[in-house]
Amino acid sequence: MSITQNLTLSISSSSSAFLAPSNFNSRSQVSLQAKSPSICKCIATPQEVETAYKTRVSRNENLGKLQAGYLFPEIGRRKSAHLLKYPDAKIISLGIGDTTEPIPEVISSALAKKSLALSTLEGYSGYGAEQGEKPLRSAIASTFYPDLGIEDDDIFVSDGAKCDISRLQIVFGSNVKMAVQDPSYPAYVDSSVIMGQTGLYQKDVQKFANIEYMKCSPENATREQLVQLVRYAKDNGSIIIHDSAYAMYMSGDNPRSIFEIPGAKEVAIETSSFSKYAGFTGVRLGWSVVPKELLFSDGFPVAKDFNRIVSTCFNGASNISQAGGLACLSPEGLKAMRGVIGYYKENTNIIMETFDSLGFKVYGGKNAPYVWVHFPGQSSWDVFSEILEKTHVVTTPGSGFGPGGEGFVRVSAFGHRENVLEACRRFKELYK
Amino acid sequence: MSITQNLTLSISSSSSAFLAPSNFNSRSQVSLQAKSPSICKCIATPQEVETAYKTRVSRNENLGKLQAGYLFPEIGRRKSAHLLKYPDAKIISLGIGDTTEPIPEVISSALAKKSLALSTLEGYSGYGAEQGEKPLRSAIASTFYPDLGIEDDDIFVSDGAKCDISRLQIVFGSNVKMAVQDPSYPAYVDSSVIMGQTGLYQKDVQKFANIEYMKCSPENATREQLVQLVRYAKDNGSIIIHDSAYAMYMSGDNPRSIFEIPGAKEVAIETSSFSKYAGFTGVRLGWSVVPKELLFSDGFPVAKDFNRIVSTCFNGASNISQAGGLACLSPEGLKAMRGVIGYYKENTNIIMETFDSLGFKVYGGKNAPYVWVHFPGQSSWDVFSEILEKTHVVTTPGSGFGPGGEGFVRVSAFGHRENVLEACRRFKELYK
Repeated sequence: MSITQNLTLSISSSSSAFLAPSNFNSRSQVSLQAKSPSICKCIATPQEVETAYKTRVSRNENLGKLQAGYLFPEIGRRKSAHLLKYPDAKIISLGIGDTTEPIPEVISSALAKKSLALSTLEGYSGYGAEQGEKPLRSAIASTFYPDLGIEDDDIFVSDGAKCDISRLQIVFGSNVKMAVQDPSYPAYVDSSVIMGQTGLYQKDVQKFANIEYMKCSPENATREQLVQLVRYAKDNGSIIIHDSAYAMYMSGDNPRSIFEIPGAKEVAIETSSFSKYAGFTGVRLGWSVVPKELLFSDGFPVAKDFNRIVSTCFNGASNISQAGGLACLSPEGLKAMRGVIGYYKENTNIIMETFDSLGFKVYGGKNAPYVWVHFPGQSSWDVFSEILEKTHVVTTPGSGFGPGGEGFVRVSAFGHRENVLEACRRFKELYK
Repeated sequence: MSITQNLTLSISSSSSAFLAPSNFNSRSQVSLQAKSPSICKCIATPQEVETAYKTRVSRNENLGKLQAGYLFPEIGRRKSAHLLKYPDAKIISLGIGDTTEPIPEVISSALAKKSLALSTLEGYSGYGAEQGEKPLRSAIASTFYPDLGIEDDDIFVSDGAKCDISRLQIVFGSNVKMAVQDPSYPAYVDSSVIMGQTGLYQKDVQKFANIEYMKCSPENATREQLVQLVRYAKDNGSIIIHDSAYAMYMSGDNPRSIFEIPGAKEVAIETSSFSKYAGFTGVRLGWSVVPKELLFSDGFPVAKDFNRIVSTCFNGASNISQAGGLACLSPEGLKAMRGVIGYYKENTNIIMETFDSLGFKVYGGKNAPYVWVHFPGQSSWDVFSEILEKTHVVTTPGSGFGPGGEGFVRVSAFGHRENVLEACRRFKELYK
């Protein structure tokens, strides 16, 4: 008896989809019925209550490989637990890189204007292009990639770099091997695991099998090293995903985009974001650059497949956020964003100087608003816990970004000035 | 020579990730160098120019299985081509279900208010919970699922149902078999193909191998049929994805949510959206309900894995959109949404009556703002093309929703009244 014979559904009603175990065969029920579910007698874990109904759909084994929660929600949970323990504590969050300063008015007024326009016949718009509105794609290309040969249609507007990282992983699927900077933004490793590119987690080395962890030294990467990276990719046929979400924080001769490196268009994709420039962490707006020159081994353009994924798995960033993005890239918007970035960079200097004066070795802080403080021989999570317990300041354990971050704690410079100053006073008290 | 030895990267610079062919082995270069890329002499397709550099990363074979473009962008392309051919034609779009009426002021003013608040110290917010803001989750639960035992934390706020469909597919991975209503919203089938759940497309039957197409009769589904569906899932251990994006358009005794059916919480997930109620197609806001009672075969809650995917592959819907969603669910917002829905339902009646009066068999239109017109024995795409050519009205070929839609054309009732009336005049002229 097939589902088709069993049910008469309507073409006009809402869609439904069924998911069944992979050995599902609706034409012959034998395979399902032969495999009776085993009753689990274990009562230790709440989700395995003997009486609870269980489907016959197996859990995706790739998700089973993931370790604990995603890093930042995990830190959020520890912060909440701390607050339960110390309800009166004045907690200062310098953990996740979450912006704290208000959106400049020239930008927020554009968001509001678009919002109100949506209630007028002339100003209303529904579905936009999944790739983003043309004026915004054009403004991104001309603002961030002038004279680099990046064209408007190489730009794909998104609801943020984190979301695009997963969409990029969907493009490549399970049949690639990833090498990742260590330490690194955790979404890279986790999305690779989710897509089935890796083996199991190896607790002894804190690494997933079949990911290449490229251990990084504490020194800053230089333009010359990015040139080497592009040359390496070109010699070996690899594809680089370059995350430039902090490009506007960079100083000196460091490249703001990988596409400043000759030849990069044939081997690289870049993801970026308005989050840390305009305070758009909650508004959600980013972009990826997938040059049409980037080809799979069979000559098929990667951009064509990314476009298919964006069209099928996404429906464009909010039209309100996109109107805000366009305002960000106006001369007044750019000036306002530089003001916000300058504020966070001053915070960074304050944190750098604090730990430096306490005798710690500090790294980073020059090209991104994060200070890496070295605690040689100590566990990052232990230091994280001690700082939280004794100063009520939330940081991020370096090991949360990969085994290469072990022994470090990352202090974010996103915060109101008075909170950064207060946190630094508490650090000085703790480590005096 | 390993990458690690080759490059010294910085812990403070932007993250980069490498993707390499699956046979990549940085410890021994032999496997890569032994496999020299073959030069393609074919010059017929522009992307395979002999001189172009190609990476050694293979195209994801699942993406290669997909047919043409995603349906709606494909229709957009045909519309653009038509406009090139007839530059003066007054095209009326009744194709993709894109809302046309302005957002009610009670809702747009909440969007604007939140936008402006983001430029104040008190009103600013950065990263929100990936699952959505608590007041919105709570309002969705109490508005759409009163007395159904759905709790606030069963609700996951999203940037739209289409996006959540892909995230749900990521949860299940490649090791499930999908059965889908035929015809169906194309994102279901395409996302299943992308995740590797299917075989190749079989041109003769217009189906992908290893998807079960549940052919639907033109009659409306009833509550009793949904009861049967839940019972079927329960007997067989399957999981149902129920798409209730048009619940507020439904009439009569039809269930607005699958969770009205007893026992559904143990076998079903529901996706939904503000798009077609509040005109949020461009604003982007939806939700999914993943009850904690829904368990994999090993007893692990599906909601826990969905939560992990939402946390890792997504960063929450825009905080502005969420403020709009909360306004939608206020008494004034609900009243305003019902007004918009009523307007589109009147459009639906006008279209139904038009085709009915012309002697066509029409289906649907009672529980969703889409009218399915039957053209027995004809190709949907042929009828689509003829209507576009002769009336400049864009519809959707039924076969775009699956082989079960062949012989039908779907006419959307989303449109300004005068456009719907004008389209109906043209239909009467064509088919008189």
